[in-house]
Amino acid sequence: MYDSKGLNEECGVFGIWNHPESAQLTYMGLHSLQHRGQEGAGIVCSNGETLIGERGLGLLTEAISDIQLETFKSYQHAIGHVRYATSGNKGIENIQPFLYHFYDMSVAVCHNGNLINAQSLKRSLEHQGSIFHSSSDTEVIMHLIRKSKAPTFEDAFQESLRKIKGGFTFAVLTKDALYGAVDPNAIRPLAVGKMQNGSYIIASETCAIDVLGAEFVRDIHAGEYVVITDEGIRVESYTKHTTTAISAMEYIYFARPDSTIAGKNVHAVRKQSGKQLAKESPAPTADMVIGVPNSSLSAASGYAEASGLPYEMGLVKNQYVARTFIQPTQELREQGVRVKLSAVKDIVQDKNIVLVDDSIVRGTTSRRIVQMLKDAGAREVHVRIASPEFMFPSFYGIDVSTTAELISANKSPEEISEHIGADSLAYLSVDGLIDSIGLEVDAPYSGLCVESFTGDYPAGLYDYEEDYIAHLSDRQKAYIADHKQFFDREGNLNV
Amino acid sequence: MYDSKGLNEECGVFGIWNHPESAQLTYMGLHSLQHRGQEGAGIVCSNGETLIGERGLGLLTEAISDIQLETFKSYQHAIGHVRYATSGNKGIENIQPFLYHFYDMSVAVCHNGNLINAQSLKRSLEHQGSIFHSSSDTEVIMHLIRKSKAPTFEDAFQESLRKIKGGFTFAVLTKDALYGAVDPNAIRPLAVGKMQNGSYIIASETCAIDVLGAEFVRDIHAGEYVVITDEGIRVESYTKHTTTAISAMEYIYFARPDSTIAGKNVHAVRKQSGKQLAKESPAPTADMVIGVPNSSLSAASGYAEASGLPYEMGLVKNQYVARTFIQPTQELREQGVRVKLSAVKDIVQDKNIVLVDDSIVRGTTSRRIVQMLKDAGAREVHVRIASPEFMFPSFYGIDVSTTAELISANKSPEEISEHIGADSLAYLSVDGLIDSIGLEVDAPYSGLCVESFTGDYPAGLYDYEEDYIAHLSDRQKAYIADHKQFFDREGNLNV
Amino acid sequence: MYDSKGLNEECGVFGIWNHPESAQLTYMGLHSLQHRGQEGAGIVCSNGETLIGERGLGLLTEAISDIQLETFKSYQHAIGHVRYATSGNKGIENIQPFLYHFYDMSVAVCHNGNLINAQSLKRSLEHQGSIFHSSSDTEVIMHLIRKSKAPTFEDAFQESLRKIKGGFTFAVLTKDALYGAVDPNAIRPLAVGKMQNGSYIIASETCAIDVLGAEFVRDIHAGEYVVITDEGIRVESYTKHTTTAISAMEYIYFARPDSTIAGKNVHAVRKQSGKQLAKESPAPTADMVIGVPNSSLSAASGYAEASGLPYEMGLVKNQYVARTFIQPTQELREQGVRVKLSAVKDIVQDKNIVLVDDSIVRGTTSRRIVQMLKDAGAREVHVRIASPEFMFPSFYGIDVSTTAELISANKSPEEISEHIGADSLAYLSVDGLIDSIGLEVDAPYSGLCVESFTGDYPAGLYDYEEDYIAHLSDRQKAYIADHKQFFDREGNLNV
Amino acid sequence: MYDSKGLNEECGVFGIWNHPESAQLTYMGLHSLQHRGQEGAGIVCSNGETLIGERGLGLLTEAISDIQLETFKSYQHAIGHVRYATSGNKGIENIQPFLYHFYDMSVAVCHNGNLINAQSLKRSLEHQGSIFHSSSDTEVIMHLIRKSKAPTFEDAFQESLRKIKGGFTFAVLTKDALYGAVDPNAIRPLAVGKMQNGSYIIASETCAIDVLGAEFVRDIHAGEYVVITDEGIRVESYTKHTTTAISAMEYIYFARPDSTIAGKNVHAVRKQSGKQLAKESPAPTADMVIGVPNSSLSAASGYAEASGLPYEMGLVKNQYVARTFIQPTQELREQGVRVKLSAVKDIVQDKNIVLVDDSIVRGTTSRRIVQMLKDAGAREVHVRIASPEFMFPSFYGIDVSTTAELISANKSPEEISEHIGADSLAYLSVDGLIDSIGLEVDAPYSGLCVESFTGDYPAGLYDYEEDYIAHLSDRQKAYIADHKQFFDREGNLNV
Repeated sequence: MYDSKGLNEECGVFGIWNHPESAQLTYMGLHSLQHRGQEGAGIVCSNGETLIGERGLGLLTEAISDIQLETFKSYQHAIGHVRYATSGNKGIENIQPFLYHFYDMSVAVCHNGNLINAQSLKRSLEHQGSIFHSSSDTEVIMHLIRKSKAPTFEDAFQESLRKIKGGFTFAVLTKDALYGAVDPNAIRPLAVGKMQNGSYIIASETCAIDVLGAEFVRDIHAGEYVVITDEGIRVESYTKHTTTAISAMEYIYFARPDSTIAGKNVHAVRKQSGKQLAKESPAPTADMVIGVPNSSLSAASGYAEASGLPYEMGLVKNQYVARTFIQPTQELREQGVRVKLSAVKDIVQDKNIVLVDDSIVRGTTSRRIVQMLKDAGAREVHVRIASPEFMFPSFYGIDVSTTAELISANKSPEEISEHIGADSLAYLSVDGLIDSIGLEVDAPYSGLCVESFTGDYPAGLYDYEEDYIAHLSDRQKAYIADHKQFFDREGNLNV
Repeated sequence: MYDSKGLNEECGVFGIWNHPESAQLTYMGLHSLQHRGQEGAGIVCSNGETLIGERGLGLLTEAISDIQLETFKSYQHAIGHVRYATSGNKGIENIQPFLYHFYDMSVAVCHNGNLINAQSLKRSLEHQGSIFHSSSDTEVIMHLIRKSKAPTFEDAFQESLRKIKGGFTFAVLTKDALYGAVDPNAIRPLAVGKMQNGSYIIASETCAIDVLGAEFVRDIHAGEYVVITDEGIRVESYTKHTTTAISAMEYIYFARPDSTIAGKNVHAVRKQSGKQLAKESPAPTADMVIGVPNSSLSAASGYAEASGLPYEMGLVKNQYVARTFIQPTQELREQGVRVKLSAVKDIVQDKNIVLVDDSIVRGTTSRRIVQMLKDAGAREVHVRIASPEFMFPSFYGIDVSTTAELISANKSPEEISEHIGADSLAYLSVDGLIDSIGLEVDAPYSGLCVESFTGDYPAGLYDYEEDYIAHLSDRQKAYIADHKQFFDREGNLNV
Repeated sequence: MYDSKGLNEECGVFGIWNHPESAQLTYMGLHSLQHRGQEGAGIVCSNGETLIGERGLGLLTEAISDIQLETFKSYQHAIGHVRYATSGNKGIENIQPFLYHFYDMSVAVCHNGNLINAQSLKRSLEHQGSIFHSSSDTEVIMHLIRKSKAPTFEDAFQESLRKIKGGFTFAVLTKDALYGAVDPNAIRPLAVGKMQNGSYIIASETCAIDVLGAEFVRDIHAGEYVVITDEGIRVESYTKHTTTAISAMEYIYFARPDSTIAGKNVHAVRKQSGKQLAKESPAPTADMVIGVPNSSLSAASGYAEASGLPYEMGLVKNQYVARTFIQPTQELREQGVRVKLSAVKDIVQDKNIVLVDDSIVRGTTSRRIVQMLKDAGAREVHVRIASPEFMFPSFYGIDVSTTAELISANKSPEEISEHIGADSLAYLSVDGLIDSIGLEVDAPYSGLCVESFTGDYPAGLYDYEEDYIAHLSDRQKAYIADHKQFFDREGNLNV
Repeated sequence: MYDSKGLNEECGVFGIWNHPESAQLTYMGLHSLQHRGQEGAGIVCSNGETLIGERGLGLLTEAISDIQLETFKSYQHAIGHVRYATSGNKGIENIQPFLYHFYDMSVAVCHNGNLINAQSLKRSLEHQGSIFHSSSDTEVIMHLIRKSKAPTFEDAFQESLRKIKGGFTFAVLTKDALYGAVDPNAIRPLAVGKMQNGSYIIASETCAIDVLGAEFVRDIHAGEYVVITDEGIRVESYTKHTTTAISAMEYIYFARPDSTIAGKNVHAVRKQSGKQLAKESPAPTADMVIGVPNSSLSAASGYAEASGLPYEMGLVKNQYVARTFIQPTQELREQGVRVKLSAVKDIVQDKNIVLVDDSIVRGTTSRRIVQMLKDAGAREVHVRIASPEFMFPSFYGIDVSTTAELISANKSPEEISEHIGADSLAYLSVDGLIDSIGLEVDAPYSGLCVESFTGDYPAGLYDYEEDYIAHLSDRQKAYIADHKQFFDREGNLNV
């Protein structure tokens, strides 16, 4: 997680109702979700009458000052957000939660994921005279709500949720209630917890519930939203058209290892993936197993355990983030990589190594790491990826939405192995991944969203469809032709 | 390393001579030494005529801006420093390197370690009318040099090195040369590397040599200094009274796992310590081994390997530093701990755990971690410390200089086990530690400084002696009485 | 001008079309308008294709960095704004220009003045589902434009201008044109200038035209707007219902002395007011004339000249703005006043003084100044105000909109004289003011807006009317009763 | 004052003993002295035991934060400083007061003026092994004090004051006392005031005493120092070799108009100079008198009064400081001048103008202003300077120390008149200046230091002498030859 390979999810959300330290707890909760977004953060608080907020660029500690937190002290309800900003929309105006003061009410809203019909909705709304102030999808739902003729805010919220498509969760705060909503496929996760004092919290990951010492209550399921008020908690469905398809990428890459999604602990899943990978693709000549820190260490230890090989720290990641480097020469650029990650010469020299990584996106990082290990004296480097080939772009909140970015969309494992300079390369199978996660849901892929590996998009593609189809690579087309059966279900595109 | 248990070394130094990107490389080198000090950083550059510099509070990225780095572009020589600030001297005036412009020359100097006769030297100099501008030991050597009547700068530097006592390394830059010096016991490390273009570098740890893609040349040994000029490199001894006593704490706690000190890789030493610990103190009922991230993970994997137990990620450390938290209530304070480190409930629940940590200083952190694991459902927690009992204060550059701070100075392992709520507690033996490191030096403790475990101070105590003896605890006295033979060698105190 | 007496106008606007240094010139122009607003500033630039901008809190130098200006270097068109923020809307979200990116175009807009029907327009728009992101009136016009069905942007702009009421000027930038508009009474000023290279500029005051070395072209008159494109300049009328009523307060207080409004230089007007005041209200016992720096110095020198008394610097204003003072005690608070303004003891001691000020709003400042002069030894202080009694609130862009704030709404000159501790107090007559300004316009009050002195509101009151009438003071009612004839014209309220 | 003509004095000092709001009052006092230095400021406080301080770059409001001030709340004694930084020593390390913590005491020191033997003292001290940390003269006195063998601090201070030469004042704070010292010629001013609560204050100008509502007690005279302790106030002489020679430049240019030096109010002196100038050099064809804001307005009003001409505001100075402008083209550079100062076209057009300025240093500014007036339509511009020809460099704390910078060192009034494009140019005579100030002191020039006009240096030249003589211009030599009698007195150089 939080590596530079180009996999980025858009954001983490948090909410709390009725706690005297709501802003402080939101700050702590967001801090535990920081890995989901480091380019902006915000908090909006309510005292039941007034909503006020603060947001800023950068890490939480940069975005929200202690002085500001102090001013939120008498507020009992809050939502918060950490944001990963895709290029082109890094301004402060896109940092959430968005806080709106209308003549008849105030509302704050923040969101994780991606709306795949946002552009068409936005254009239609602009055509009717609506004015948008950000390039964020989040603003779309607010416009839908305000345009709605539904009698209550909750009704308008439901109606608007039915109009948007994609993978998403929303946290919404009014002076009367805290809402949390999940997309009709539950692609993006949202969990509910309960503090000892009876306060309820919602969060993108259960780690935020744990760090606050709260008790996990339940996940919000596909097509549901939760409403928390002074009267208590209530979960409702806003649509009946649901199919559970939890993002496998949350397990593989995004989520913190101590989080649990749909009953499955992330570290345990990763370790199991590593074990499965060792079974599927052993490396008979290897002396040791090394994981790419930090997101692949669990899988690597699983691989080591299953294969009986020692698990070694052959790569060290600098724990301090070096924001920017001026890198005027090629020589310095190469050193720039080593500054973040370095090989331990005394460990890897003259050794045959199994290098476990969680995924290959562009191949650039893998190539650098293999080169680094070889430069440090490693004899053989056998790359083992604890997930299937990343062959299809994702449009549901992962920041990889073009085929051109994906090396597996264009090259076979053998070609990639050569490209990255490895002595061998193998991926976990799709079935192996599904088994390792082990959801027991009566839905395709046992309830997982594995669109990046299969091209099977459970929520459809909408605004992205035309461009996606136009740019399909030969390898993608061949895969799709081989797996026709995926593409017969309702809601999926016909290629 | 870099945890909050109260073990802090004072600083990392770096130097480079004759490279067109000297400041940028210094920045990268310091970044890899950031774990040695996070409260300030500085760089001084030279173009062979003029010395200029920049320094600032906080992490390197906060202390030195890209804009500033850019202005250093045409400078070929540089030294740099990252600083851990002990309380009471956190001002910018203490951030190094110190840069002095005299009528006859300019000099920059920075330092790692602690001078144990700095106070008496400083008072004597002030009495003669000298004026100090910082509370840093580093300033003392500059005054000694300037007061010297020696004919050359190098002679004056040598003469001054002979007057100071303790554990230290210095990096010094003049327009003509880069110097690196090590104390007469080599307590603190300093290594020399060589870039492909022929430039030489010096650094507190070899990881800084590796990240720059440079080749390790040699360590600077006890009582030596290196001089690097346009004519080449030269190593000299400034004293014959040397006894090698490399700080064992560098291996146990401070250094980065990818660094190599005196030929021994730090990760490998730690893993070996873990294996040795498993042999000395098994935990027969245990289901799994967990390490305290990040400094104890190597030892934990060694323990797991030797014991045949699975190595699990039962504790997760938040990778983002939360600078400060307002923690008005006891409840929030407890949550503050979980924000940094959290137990993975799904891993540890109903399990018997071996918890491997590198050291126990005050016991506070250990108690919290054990509690956290038990709260998360762990059945038994057997604490195994991959170093001996930390019974004596250190005065050679580790920020623990009072007996009162050390729980082992006052309590037995059994008492501590109870205090921290563990089901059992065991430490690595001193001999086990020495064997795990495995130096082959003809000196006491095979060339290690293990003063914190034995009370045997290789460089004496000087200004600290009176106060140290006055505050000896019963447990310390008993230990000393049992190990009389330690204290017969020249240079050590008689208690 | 820019004193602390509570008279604040909302903003200055600037625009330039087709100059290679457009952003830099906008910066310079705004700097000369800084007295019109110090709490925020912004610039939006266009290269004919893309609009980008920067805005920030505080003075221009704080709001816009040199680095930012540098990035605007290749842009040829720009508008800019300096803002006075009324309490309650000080956030960055209210800083102008506002920059909108729609699917079909980009627009930047900024504004000076106050829309008196903004609240009713805003509520009506919100009711239709529009979402506002600021508390600024400026946003209203953008919503009107976007809701318009008019065929072109210019048509929609015209239509929207006809819907808004009050005193205002707008600067609007699209990729094709720069627009500048003035309210139907020309209450707020806007002038056009021409650079030597043929570029056109618009600015709230002519001083911005002068500092750029440009030539004054003309004022934009009541109900007009100017359009500047690559084809040239064009002035149009968006309404025929116009009555010229230029804010007398611009001459008295707001504008820089070197600006010229409707052909009348501000310094000359002020000096003439002072002369007229000397004629109307001499001070026979006085030894010297002192002006309150800086806005009253012109009037004071006029009074001195006409009365034959020496003009002395008896009050000195600190030229450095002290942002905030912690003033824990009453004693310190009093010193806080002296920090900004101090009496020159050696000048005023034992003297009879004519103190010329431009206006009295609340009376607080006047009382302090009189006290200060007496404390410094002045024997008599005869206060002469170079404008009539400020008896009625203003709603057209001056930040005084409640009767309760105005001492003259509630007290007679005699009562005020006693209240402020003066030996005598006299105001300029309304006719004297009108004559001193000397406009030759065929309109009430010779084309001036003197609503603050007469209660005669040329643009009506709209959203403010109900509250205004409800809070009329006895003194206001009596004045209105005495001047019934004012209130018969179309567009004015009947009290 | 505080204009850009290149006349800058080095600093203002302030001190207060025994007031519960000492830091806040120091802040206010420094704010009133801000015109004496805008590039750095600092405050050191004492509670009778501990001395702590804060200093920073820029204006007082930038250098010292409110939060910092708040931390000084319980401190009763303080000194403060505003600094004008000459080029080359702008770093934070030169910002005063300097605060020293020695083993036996703590001392804070700050200074106004220039030590003309600082370089030779510094080199001598460095040769003895002393280390300097700044390029400031202020550090020299601290080294002298610490090197002294005198029995008490006060004795050492006296002894050190006798060793330094030039024009200076010092404020020194120890835990026991506040000291203020003045050079043996009283070139730089220092005044003592008394608060109502009995607290004493010292300040470079009386305006700082006035703004605090304190009572002026006395000036510190040549060769004196004041000691303020809990026991009361005491003034001592540290030398008998004194000759009063108060810097005429304080009256002409530096001091605030409301300050009084040696019993003479600055505004009154300036006005009198203007009257005298009108008598000496009338301008028969003139229509009006204009002063260059802000420092020449008093003199201009005096000229107007004496000549019977109207006093007009023909030049307007922007009250907001524009820190930096990027000025890539010549065109923009010219506009840059107008941004600071602009001519009022409607006032000056077709008029014959007397332009009163306080001094001409390089002639650059004068040329620009004359040009600006002519561009605005002025027919004739008669420049009248309210001080004599500035022919000789100053070494006593004015930042003009080379002959080459001074246009009058090289050109006659006729040549300068032509150079600046004036229709005539005249200066006040030296006698006229001395009479206008009107000191009644039994010393050369009635107790004034007029070295810039006569080349007669009352405190000698020391380190500067050789270079000064080597660069004498023909015009300077001719003046000296004509005024031989000046150069016979003790302490002056023989040219």
